[in-house]
Parts: sequence; C-alpha cells; structure tokens
Amino acid sequence: MYDTASIQPAFQPIEQGNPADDGRAFRRCLGQYATGVAVITVKHDDKLAGMAVNSFSAVSLDPPLVLWSIRRESASAKAYLEASHFVVNVLSADQVETSQVFGAPHPDRFSQVAWTPGRHGIPLLDGAVAHLECRLETVYEGGDHLILVGHVDRYVRFEGEPLLFAQGQYAVTQNHPRLTVAAASPSEPIAEGKVPTFLKLLSITNQHMSALFQEHRQALCVTAASTRILNRLFESPCGIDELERSTYLGRDTIEDVLGDLVAQGHVLSDKGTLFELTAKGRRTSEAVAKRSAEFTIEKLRGISESDIAAAKRVLLELQKR
Amino acid sequence: MYDTASIQPAFQPIEQGNPADDGRAFRRCLGQYATGVAVITVKHDDKLAGMAVNSFSAVSLDPPLVLWSIRRESASAKAYLEASHFVVNVLSADQVETSQVFGAPHPDRFSQVAWTPGRHGIPLLDGAVAHLECRLETVYEGGDHLILVGHVDRYVRFEGEPLLFAQGQYAVTQNHPRLTVAAASPSEPIAEGKVPTFLKLLSITNQHMSALFQEHRQALCVTAASTRILNRLFESPCGIDELERSTYLGRDTIEDVLGDLVAQGHVLSDKGTLFELTAKGRRTSEAVAKRSAEFTIEKLRGISESDIAAAKRVLLELQKR
Repeated sequence: MYDTASIQPAFQPIEQGNPADDGRAFRRCLGQYATGVAVITVKHDDKLAGMAVNSFSAVSLDPPLVLWSIRRESASAKAYLEASHFVVNVLSADQVETSQVFGAPHPDRFSQVAWTPGRHGIPLLDGAVAHLECRLETVYEGGDHLILVGHVDRYVRFEGEPLLFAQGQYAVTQNHPRLTVAAASPSEPIAEGKVPTFLKLLSITNQHMSALFQEHRQALCVTAASTRILNRLFESPCGIDELERSTYLGRDTIEDVLGDLVAQGHVLSDKGTLFELTAKGRRTSEAVAKRSAEFTIEKLRGISESDIAAAKRVLLELQKR
Repeated sequence: MYDTASIQPAFQPIEQGNPADDGRAFRRCLGQYATGVAVITVKHDDKLAGMAVNSFSAVSLDPPLVLWSIRRESASAKAYLEASHFVVNVLSADQVETSQVFGAPHPDRFSQVAWTPGRHGIPLLDGAVAHLECRLETVYEGGDHLILVGHVDRYVRFEGEPLLFAQGQYAVTQNHPRLTVAAASPSEPIAEGKVPTFLKLLSITNQHMSALFQEHRQALCVTAASTRILNRLFESPCGIDELERSTYLGRDTIEDVLGDLVAQGHVLSDKGTLFELTAKGRRTSEAVAKRSAEFTIEKLRGISESDIAAAKRVLLELQKR
C-alpha cells in the first residue's frame, strides 16, 4: 500500500495562486491533468484544415456527443464554425511528429502526413488509434475559447497505443507499477518470494530505478524539461522548432523554460529565433550530466564488475531481438 | 523515423460503426483518447459529495475556465448543480484507490481518504497533483450528460506524477521511447555507438521488450484486460470490486470483458456477484501463462546461463537500493 490515505507524506505545493495573477503558472497547473492528443480535421470551401488539441472530451453515449475547444482568435476558427462536419483523429504513440505539424504554423500540413478522405472529403489521418466522424451540433461560449460539441456519426478504433501529453511533454503509457509488482508474484512479495521471470524483473527494476532517479533530480531542483533543453543546446545553438523536435516538450513549455533560462543567464537569445548556452549555461549543463553519471555509479556500487559486464551483455543482446 | 508518414503499415480497424448500434464498442473507441483522473468535490446542504471523472478539460486561460460532465441521472447531479462552488482534484499516480472509492457506490467516501477543507468547506484531497477551486459559471446541455463550466478562483500545483486512464485501465506516464533512445547517445545510433550508461540501457531494453511482448500478445488475440481477469479468477472466484482492486482495469472494462468471457464459456457467474472460471476458462488461463513463459524463454535463447544468472543478480540487487 502506498496510497495517499495510508502513508500521508507532506504534500508540498510548487506553485499556487489566482490564475489572473500568473497565466503561465496556471497553465502549468492545468498540465497536471494528462490528456491524449487529437487532430481535428475539417473541409471548408474546398480547403482542408487541421489542428492538434488536447481539449477533447467524451460527453454523452446516447446521443453520442464529444467536445473540444478552439481559441476564438484562431485563424482556423471560421472554418470549424462554418463547416457542417469535422473529424477527431486520436493520435497514436508513433505520431509525435504529426502532432507537431498540426500544432505549429505550417504552410502545407496535409502534404506532411498520410491521410485518406472520409465522408464529406474530410481527412482521416493514417496511423491514428481512433477516428470519430462528427456533425457539428452546438457551439458554446467558453471565455477566450469556443466549445464545439459534435454528434458522432461513425467511429473506428484501431490497434495501437495512444500518444499522451502530460506536464508539458509528450509521453506514452505504461502499466501501473503496483500492477506489475502484483502480477509478478500474486501470492507473495517479490523480495522474499520466488524470483519472477527475467523480463518481469527487468520491468520492475526499471520502474524502481526511474522512480529513484526522479527523486534524485527533484532533490537537485532541476526539472526534466530544463535538463532536456540544456542538453540539446550543449550540442549546438538552435531554434524553437529544433528544440521541439529533439526534446518532445510542448511549445508552451519550451517557451516558458527558455524564458527562465535567459533570465537566469544560462541562455542567450539571438532575436528570439536562435538560442545558445552562455558559459554559465555550459557549466550548469555539465554539472547536471556529471550528477546523472554519479547517480548511476552510486547505484551500481558494490556490485561486482563482472556481473555488471554480464548484465550489459544480456541487455544489449536483448535489444537485437 | 518510425512515424506514420514514413513507414505506412496497414492500419487494421478493430471495431467500427455507428455509435447507436453498439454503445459498448463506441465507449471502447472513446477510451483510445487517454485522460487523467479528477475527483470533483462539492459541499451542498452541509453534505459532502465527490465523484471521479475523466471528462475534465481546460477551456480558457483568460478568463480561467475549465469544464467536466456529469450524467443527468447521477444521484449527485443536484448537489453539483445547486452548489455555487466545486473543487477539481487532479489525482496522482499513487491514487488509484482514491479513484476507485469515488468511482463506485460507497457509503462514506470521505472517511476513506485524507482531505483538508478548502474555501467554502469543500474537500481538497491530500496527495493530488493539483487542486482547482472553482465557482460554477455555466451549465450546458450535453445529451445524457450536463457540461459544467467552472471559473477557477485559485489553483495549487504539487510535485508528483499524474494518474492516467487509457484504453479502459489505470496507467502511469513514461518518457516517449524515441526520446530515450535519442537522449542515450545524441550523436550516434546505439547499436554501433558507445554503450550508454547501465541505467539508460535498462530503460531502453525494457521498452524494447515491452513492445515485443505486446506484439506477441496481439498475435495471440488475447487482450491485456482479459488476461488480467483470467489470471485473477485462476487464483480464486471473486466479485467485481475485487477484480477492480487487483486488475487496475476500469469498472466498465471489467463488466465488458466478463460479459464476453461468460458468453464464451470461460467464466460462470453466480447471480452476477461472484465469478469463477469454468474448466475451459482454466485451460485458457493456463495456455496464456504458458505462452508468456515461452516468450521469455525464446527471447533469452542463445544467451549463456551464467550471463543470465549474473544479470538477475544485478537486477535484484538494484531493487534493494
């Protein structure tokens, strides 16, 4: 048992306040709720439009209704409001690039991805885990956004894992750690019970080490997002598009973190288009890499070198299978 | 590159149709969009209410608005519609049990979890990754549900990982596999480049083997959900509450899968409250376990026994750290 009710640790707030006082901090808070990623496609006046959103939500089973929200000021808002139908393409774990193409300004999005025309000629993106062909039913007011409610005329579910967006970054799902432990040895705890199969052991150990590494990083007050950005800039200066491609962070997160890094003197910005590390930034980046390496060394301490070498051989061999 | 646009495999639909023809299949399709889990709490007529939902969505930054949906026929609908305020508690990965308490009928939910009264005395659940204290702004029609839009007066973000609900089961996030590979060795591919650190190697190998195992299971036409239910019932007969606790599947999924297993003659139901395996069910369960074991044996074939033994020692030792 490590549920809230049983261990009751101290839950330290990271940020809090009135959303009106700090919109960026409020957005980071909203990012605690994980979502899938959907690309909403539409055809209007014989032109195609598509937009990546994480505001999709199922509403009703009978009648079958779903909703999503669009910024009032979005250049595509007119197309979605005037078209009679739209399609919700629920992206698979393999479609980060598709999400990026439909998440940033792009001259010709539909030449960048494979798709098939569905009813009314609206694009169905290949490789999605679900297509929902919808008739626009109602539009509700939602502050700086409009809430579009669609009636689902037809659904298709495909094999595959969903893409996630959580805490400002792309991610994929994994089984809950407690399920893995329980499933490994249903009747007895692992430590004293029988040794689980090698692959189960691999999975459990990996989850354990990831959790320890996360604690380690939190103790250093370095976020995963800033580490990834520092690492990429350590290689060479680059722009936001390249950071998006290489870090798997959302654009808003990248802009937030870059703002902080510039303010702290870690990063220099060339007119906001090219970013490079300062001498201070290079030192910080090296220090973070050094501490990561130390973490590995510390965790492996006391295990014989020949065992570690054998374990490496096994892991490398498994990767070829 | 293994994005859709580049490899273009054949995407086989699993289920498709008009939602009106098969509500269960439509619900499974909606489950392809991953979500977090939020418990919405409220105080009305001096009574507390709370409900786990996965229909939460951010709507607007300025003004700060969020929404969620409630079944019209829910016993708690009156409380949420008449109360002036509600709280969105975004659950952490540790709070599966909290989600279960607030997802099924329960006599006294608030005695089962730790909480603190917030503004207006509405419960803030301890251990959540975010609290959003909201004023009910608008209620919109949404078919068999009502859409409640709240104005966020105050937000708190906490350290921690979010709980996920995807494809009918509880899960947690993990870094995108392509990020892990890229981060392991930025400048050269792993196969021919330098060996990454041991812990990175552990993570990459685990992801690779998980993907292979998933393919293996798909080829056998056995779903993860039915495997977990068969495994639990193989131990002893039990009811839906126990299946929920031990399989980390959602209630809807459990009911769906049990219905199929009963129809196929794998499971017998005692008045719908107690479920047990038939002789056929036991044979299927054993066959699935056997094939899992064969998968491990096949993947380890050709690796020396002494290396495997050494690797096991290393993994078991790491779990103690």
